[in-house]
Amino acid sequence: MIGWEDVYKVVVATVPLYVALILGYGSVRWWHIFTTEQCGAINRFVCFFTLPLFTFEFTAHVDPYKWNYRFIGADFISKLIIVVVLALWAKCSSKGSYSWSITSFSLCTLTNSLVVGVPLIKAMYGSSSVDLVVQASVVQAIVWLTILLFVLEFRRTGSIDIVSSRTTVGTRVQSVDPQGNDVEAMEEITISTRPSFWYLMKAVWVKLGMNPNSYAVFIGIAWALIASRWHIELPSIMEGSVLIMSKAGTGTAMFSMGIFMALQEKFVACGTSLTIIGMVLRFIAGPAAMAIGSIAVGLHGDVLRVAIIQAAVPQSITSFIYAKEYGLHAEVLSTAVIFGMLVSLPVLIAYYAVLGFVH
Amino acid sequence: MIGWEDVYKVVVATVPLYVALILGYGSVRWWHIFTTEQCGAINRFVCFFTLPLFTFEFTAHVDPYKWNYRFIGADFISKLIIVVVLALWAKCSSKGSYSWSITSFSLCTLTNSLVVGVPLIKAMYGSSSVDLVVQASVVQAIVWLTILLFVLEFRRTGSIDIVSSRTTVGTRVQSVDPQGNDVEAMEEITISTRPSFWYLMKAVWVKLGMNPNSYAVFIGIAWALIASRWHIELPSIMEGSVLIMSKAGTGTAMFSMGIFMALQEKFVACGTSLTIIGMVLRFIAGPAAMAIGSIAVGLHGDVLRVAIIQAAVPQSITSFIYAKEYGLHAEVLSTAVIFGMLVSLPVLIAYYAVLGFVH
Repeated sequence: MIGWEDVYKVVVATVPLYVALILGYGSVRWWHIFTTEQCGAINRFVCFFTLPLFTFEFTAHVDPYKWNYRFIGADFISKLIIVVVLALWAKCSSKGSYSWSITSFSLCTLTNSLVVGVPLIKAMYGSSSVDLVVQASVVQAIVWLTILLFVLEFRRTGSIDIVSSRTTVGTRVQSVDPQGNDVEAMEEITISTRPSFWYLMKAVWVKLGMNPNSYAVFIGIAWALIASRWHIELPSIMEGSVLIMSKAGTGTAMFSMGIFMALQEKFVACGTSLTIIGMVLRFIAGPAAMAIGSIAVGLHGDVLRVAIIQAAVPQSITSFIYAKEYGLHAEVLSTAVIFGMLVSLPVLIAYYAVLGFVH
Repeated sequence: MIGWEDVYKVVVATVPLYVALILGYGSVRWWHIFTTEQCGAINRFVCFFTLPLFTFEFTAHVDPYKWNYRFIGADFISKLIIVVVLALWAKCSSKGSYSWSITSFSLCTLTNSLVVGVPLIKAMYGSSSVDLVVQASVVQAIVWLTILLFVLEFRRTGSIDIVSSRTTVGTRVQSVDPQGNDVEAMEEITISTRPSFWYLMKAVWVKLGMNPNSYAVFIGIAWALIASRWHIELPSIMEGSVLIMSKAGTGTAMFSMGIFMALQEKFVACGTSLTIIGMVLRFIAGPAAMAIGSIAVGLHGDVLRVAIIQAAVPQSITSFIYAKEYGLHAEVLSTAVIFGMLVSLPVLIAYYAVLGFVH
């Protein structure tokens, strides 16, 4: 069981994030310090400098040979459960759609693990648990964001849309060629427009190659593999050069999120019911799947608790950026990022309190 | 005597500052990440958020009751020596001018103590010496920058210019009233246009009131006085809220200076001879005056060394900002900031090495 002093520790760790967020919000809405174009500069500064170096700093210092592979297995199972459920829903339900499955996957699984998760888990379960969060973040960046990008590219180049909106396209084909062979014609279109795996992968790599944070993860993990294998350390002069900007990571990232909030017309951009669905997927479905995965591989104690709570931290900003780039429910992801951040503190404390009773 | 490993420690502490500087420079000149308007955003972000909180973080944690008043006395004497020399030069030399005296005072005395001085002195003489740098920075912000602003306001409202260009005005008066009583007429003008002390002080307070860094120092030192007197500490939730942005201080300040460099037409804006004079004032005259002051009050050992080296760190950016605002030799101060930063590492290491021989 946890006491008030534990809750206070979590509040102490989280409130500074909100302070940076509010400063960012206020700088635009209340104090008019930045013009709209200038807001873009802060975002670019975070995106190109502080956040990649922040990510690199965490990633480069893990020891991949000592990872908790059971925890990563649980993470994998939880994502698999979500993928299967969403695929079944898309295929079998009349309301199902692949586009919404992609968005739901984002909402269930992609978290802002380093910026929000690390200080939170550190306050709850101590520094030793931070490593688990970093592991999850590395896997998310390398595996799941790549898969998400792949699926989004796949959808963009037409295949999923054609398959899921078969009737519409079928109708169009029928009107051109009204001999009753609409389904066959449709199949042909599907096959002819379906791009090859390697073509899509190339598009994904190009996308990743334009994202400084991807470089940070890949270079970071490559360095971690070398450093842990041969027991070498980053020279202190390089360490310091990374730290000088990476120390700015948390503050500038939250500040930039505050600016992002200030630039939105309203906090809830997508209507109440979609917001509620988004929150349920983020704060209940995601952690629930993680709980099933964790119990399946036999996690217990603090590792189990960390596994569940790290699955309940607010929505990843990257997932919103991709949603916007591919024009897929960006307003839902935007609301999930903003509203999710605002409600996350009580939700996470509730999880923390409840998990205190789990033995 | 210092060894190579000592020099290396200093290099390790300083190179990250240059890395942040180069990233800022490159972001504008090489990678075109920011437009000119966007550069202003980074500058404002530093000026309104990270730097004031960075300054507050240092200032609020000093114990003013345990200050080294002998060190502050030495600092005071050194400034007094410089003021007297410059005033004599302005009054007695044919080349002397009050305007150049003000600029020379800036060049001799005002340093970028917190951003550059703290990491440098820490690497050289350990954490315990950092306190001296913070003391000097607090005195600089409260006493010397206020005096500088006062003198600049005094000059702007006309008095100094009239006094120092007596002959010119005298000639003008003479041409109007050619009865040979030019000096008397002149004296009258000087008196009538000389604004009152309180009028000028009001202008200075308004100026200080618009500078977030001034607030940071005044609030910080007020808190330090209260906290040290009654042995209280900033609640950890507030401490964390300050730290989240203040940790970004060094990196963003250097990054912003890099952007500033990139926006200049050339590194040396004011010609070679003025640059050399600026460097001599900054890196030789300033520390020399400090050495005289320190020996006068009997400083010795590491305190003496710290006193001299902290007087030789690069030019304060604030002094350039004021020079620009008041239109007084801004290009000389700009060169001193930029060129001074670039050449400071070898200069400071040379001082460090030489002072290693002082017992």
